[in-house]
Amino acid sequence: MIRKHTDRTYEAELQQLRERILLMAGTVEEMIARSVRALVDGDAELARRTIEIDGKVNLLERETDELCLLILAKRQPLGSDLRFITLALKMVTDLERIGDLAVNICERAIDLSQGPRFDSFADITRMAEIAQQMVTHAIDAFVRGDADRAQQVLDRDDELDELYHHVFRQILAQMLADPSLVERGIHVQSVAKVLERIGDHGTNLAEAVVFMVNGTDIRHQGKLDSI
Amino acid sequence: MIRKHTDRTYEAELQQLRERILLMAGTVEEMIARSVRALVDGDAELARRTIEIDGKVNLLERETDELCLLILAKRQPLGSDLRFITLALKMVTDLERIGDLAVNICERAIDLSQGPRFDSFADITRMAEIAQQMVTHAIDAFVRGDADRAQQVLDRDDELDELYHHVFRQILAQMLADPSLVERGIHVQSVAKVLERIGDHGTNLAEAVVFMVNGTDIRHQGKLDSI
Repeated sequence: MIRKHTDRTYEAELQQLRERILLMAGTVEEMIARSVRALVDGDAELARRTIEIDGKVNLLERETDELCLLILAKRQPLGSDLRFITLALKMVTDLERIGDLAVNICERAIDLSQGPRFDSFADITRMAEIAQQMVTHAIDAFVRGDADRAQQVLDRDDELDELYHHVFRQILAQMLADPSLVERGIHVQSVAKVLERIGDHGTNLAEAVVFMVNGTDIRHQGKLDSI
Repeated sequence: MIRKHTDRTYEAELQQLRERILLMAGTVEEMIARSVRALVDGDAELARRTIEIDGKVNLLERETDELCLLILAKRQPLGSDLRFITLALKMVTDLERIGDLAVNICERAIDLSQGPRFDSFADITRMAEIAQQMVTHAIDAFVRGDADRAQQVLDRDDELDELYHHVFRQILAQMLADPSLVERGIHVQSVAKVLERIGDHGTNLAEAVVFMVNGTDIRHQGKLDSI
């Protein structure tokens, strides 16, 4: 399908969709960073303020869904535009879940705000940085339709998994050395697990981009000629 | 939008989509049941066979996505049909993730297949039953467009959360009484957490159905008149 470049309203709608997704991604990235800072600094107040942001993310999800439906209904796009919009629908779901996961970290940060720190906090901060970058780069790849950039995101997931296993071993050792740390240790371990899951969502986002770009290639090879 | 009832091919495509989603849901429900049976019975072989099913789920996801795209492109549906298909796209994502989570339980089942059982296995079996029913009923509500049935799913999530907290306390007590159980205990706790997350996906599925039905109502009230 060749888009009519004279149709400025349609272009504006697609641009609005891209911007909405970038805004949503920026918001959840900020939530990840704040949630882990709240954990590491033992800052329950920051955790509570970060939880409040989630309402905005949920609203953005609903608005973006509606925008996608509106474009589908009004414009009835085909080919790569159709693929872009249907993947946008899936991606906002991933972004919304990432917001929920950041809330999850905030809740653990509140539980853990009193009491001793864990040796693993440095690695957890590192995990948060990687998870956040995975989301940033996947969304960046999505709005540019850049499969190579998406592939780089996929490569980082292993790094995150390795860090998770390292943190797991570290916390286990601390718990075995001092069983009074078991309950708190499980909470710290679950934060690491949540960051690994955020990385999985980053992977999902990146895979969606690769599929979007490759899907277009397949279409060009005639596989979806019936569309 | 009033569907032309003479268009049998279109009806057949929508029916095919419903059946594909039912098949995918049935497959992941089976995976949940088997993964927990493998854990409780210490049956590593059953866990390995269950992991193999996940490839089928991934394939079903891709095929269902393609079917949705095909219907959108060929039929350019509006109103409730458009909403149905765009939500189908989101729901297959949830179902695919549930399959991944069942694989996660299988991996823990293999780790735990040798060694002592935990007191919590009865509650974990109960959690699996609830999580599985939530998925079944949410999908059932989806194909029937039944918001009341979807609401019932939402009500069950609290029950699952309570059971999770009970299991968490129980395992913590066992670990504190016998620190040699800490590592295995964390694995059992993570299975309970995974079942809680499957429940969250059931909740997402059910919320999507409520949105689909209510969205239709909103549209009738003129909010989406621009479509």
